[in-house]
Amino acid sequence: MPDQTTVPDQTTGAVAPSWLDVPADHPFGLQTLAYGVFSTEGTAPRVGVRVGDLVLDAGACAERAGMESGEVWLAPTLNPFLAQGRQAWGAARAWLTEVLTQDTHRDCVEPHLLPLEQVRMHLPLDVADYVDFYASEQHATNVGRLFRPDSEPLTPNWKHLPIGYHGRAGTVVVSGTDVVRPSGQRKAPTQSAPTYGPSTRLDIEAELGFVVGGSTELGQRVSVDDADEHLFGVVLLNDWSARDIQAWEYVPLGPFLGKSFATSISAWVVPMDALAAARVPVPRQDPEPLPYLVGAGAAYGLDIHYEVELNGTVVSRPEYRDQYWSPAQMLAHLSVNGASVRPGDLFGSGTISGKDPGTRGSLLELSWNGAEPVALSDGSTRSFLEDGDEVVLRAWAPGPGGSTVGLGEVRGTILPARP
Amino acid sequence: MPDQTTVPDQTTGAVAPSWLDVPADHPFGLQTLAYGVFSTEGTAPRVGVRVGDLVLDAGACAERAGMESGEVWLAPTLNPFLAQGRQAWGAARAWLTEVLTQDTHRDCVEPHLLPLEQVRMHLPLDVADYVDFYASEQHATNVGRLFRPDSEPLTPNWKHLPIGYHGRAGTVVVSGTDVVRPSGQRKAPTQSAPTYGPSTRLDIEAELGFVVGGSTELGQRVSVDDADEHLFGVVLLNDWSARDIQAWEYVPLGPFLGKSFATSISAWVVPMDALAAARVPVPRQDPEPLPYLVGAGAAYGLDIHYEVELNGTVVSRPEYRDQYWSPAQMLAHLSVNGASVRPGDLFGSGTISGKDPGTRGSLLELSWNGAEPVALSDGSTRSFLEDGDEVVLRAWAPGPGGSTVGLGEVRGTILPARP
Repeated sequence: MPDQTTVPDQTTGAVAPSWLDVPADHPFGLQTLAYGVFSTEGTAPRVGVRVGDLVLDAGACAERAGMESGEVWLAPTLNPFLAQGRQAWGAARAWLTEVLTQDTHRDCVEPHLLPLEQVRMHLPLDVADYVDFYASEQHATNVGRLFRPDSEPLTPNWKHLPIGYHGRAGTVVVSGTDVVRPSGQRKAPTQSAPTYGPSTRLDIEAELGFVVGGSTELGQRVSVDDADEHLFGVVLLNDWSARDIQAWEYVPLGPFLGKSFATSISAWVVPMDALAAARVPVPRQDPEPLPYLVGAGAAYGLDIHYEVELNGTVVSRPEYRDQYWSPAQMLAHLSVNGASVRPGDLFGSGTISGKDPGTRGSLLELSWNGAEPVALSDGSTRSFLEDGDEVVLRAWAPGPGGSTVGLGEVRGTILPARP
Repeated sequence: MPDQTTVPDQTTGAVAPSWLDVPADHPFGLQTLAYGVFSTEGTAPRVGVRVGDLVLDAGACAERAGMESGEVWLAPTLNPFLAQGRQAWGAARAWLTEVLTQDTHRDCVEPHLLPLEQVRMHLPLDVADYVDFYASEQHATNVGRLFRPDSEPLTPNWKHLPIGYHGRAGTVVVSGTDVVRPSGQRKAPTQSAPTYGPSTRLDIEAELGFVVGGSTELGQRVSVDDADEHLFGVVLLNDWSARDIQAWEYVPLGPFLGKSFATSISAWVVPMDALAAARVPVPRQDPEPLPYLVGAGAAYGLDIHYEVELNGTVVSRPEYRDQYWSPAQMLAHLSVNGASVRPGDLFGSGTISGKDPGTRGSLLELSWNGAEPVALSDGSTRSFLEDGDEVVLRAWAPGPGGSTVGLGEVRGTILPARP
């Protein structure tokens, strides 16, 4: 399924010149070179690289061009490529740029370019461990106010460590996968006992997902300054959440069934190398974190603009640059106890919410727990998701020379609960 | 590394007669037929079946005997076998019993039996998703009293659902793997800010782990009565826990780094089929759980006797039969929201603790948070683990005809924190 990325504020920037006819303002030009896994009718899933509205059959092309180590792209997931590590990722990107810009490679490459509409996209990686963080101060504050009105909104640990928890790797799905409304236990404060049934407070969480590559041994940690060695790229992530199930289950061991029914990610993984121009300082951290969370690598966040669309209406425009904890801090914290990382590990940023109500990343916050329903363009309103609702997250970032780096979209439609 | 299972109360029972010289009271006789993954010097890891103090090279034997579908045992993990499902597991067990009992198969089988001391054991499965439950009422009560002294020890949801959370699949390790003391943030109530350093409250949790096979589609649930179709077998599980890290991090999203540094499981997976004689009713559940947690399949627990040994001293003898929530209830709850299950999913029971202090499954409880240190036979005492300490969990269950089913052991030694 092709992405339909809209880029409201397109900047006319210098995009690497290519023998391919990719418009300079295309969010998936050569400044991006996102990776995914695709198949065509009758062929096996394999790695593809998006170039404009085309998909390069990367493994076949590399094989024909005699590129060493390109056989990892014949695999049905990005995991073997992720396992190769930072040096190989850099070499691969340099090679792709070369063959797409130097005219001498045209005859070799062109036969391996397929129109987006002819391919089917698959989950790009076999998710090893999935961790979800909670790195937006405003989101944590909002949720604290709504879930624990009688306490301080931020727990005492919040500004000392990036709070996170493990989620279910096996239910991470690719953009376009329908989401069945989950059933489970929930208990309203006014009820004396829980009841069972379909969630009535089904929500989204607009997040950024970080795809990890390389690996470490058990007992070894990844420092903030080594984090770049393991951060391969990013995906858009929708952490679907059943608020009623979550509220009843989460004390004392955290969210479980309120989250584990599905987590959607975009089909295209945008390499960190494409986001160099999007690096921005993280907000000031006060109190100063402990030394293992401090260092040059810890200091940058990302300037990524989001759009949350519900049934065709853009209901929010979160800004990733507002996130309190940086990608390197999340990875360093995740492994500081010696937990090993593996190719295909995925961690989410947590919901991206800003101070302005129009920048909140969940319906729980946008509708303020139902007190202020969100208006849609068809005249209806939503506090939470109804059956048939379609949610699309889109995002883009500044690229080199005024270009725009597209992050594509993550899309999902709610199906009714099963009996 | 061979297990050194001790069976204090050996019962002389009728064990299936074999042409092999396995003592009738051997916990790994034909009543057990546990699966693991082994290698010998210079050979690749593959599935083995334990028979007494021997390991059957199951794939090689099946190949030679012309057994269909035995090639899954040539894999380096149990996952392909787990994927085959209940019917294949039953057929495999029947075949193993036949070739080990009928003398006509002796010439074919005997060359594939290796002494335990000649093999190296590996992690038996590639863990897909790992979930840890909290199914012992007494453990949850004890922890509630210690961690939240000002509240009711059991949270309001505890008797309505089996509380659980996802853990880190990538740090599940096989028995015998050393455990590096984790470092991280911790804050004593008397301190104004957290400090970083090695955990000073490193603990164990004696649990039973359930290995899941077969698979379901996203949106589909496993009912309590279908649970047996997916419960392949059990392992012993030590959920190493850094109490100081856990106490500081776990509000509001649950345990993370306090657990994710390592989880040890036994090398041998004992099939549920070997535990038929160990089925016992679960304790009375009051209030009656919601209907999705009720049914014939939900009604049985397991009569498994544990020994927790610390540096050669048995410090506790937990009884699995005291667990409040049944295996089928845990699996049905885990999937009630439509979360799919995959071959290699693993879920832990939570710490097994009884009412008697001598049956508690963690040092936190045994030493009552350090107030009553545990005495060891060398004259020393322990509130929590010290570097160099070795912990061994052992367990066994009643088998058919008065025999004993061994669950082997899970062993680990604490290494000092890395700088």
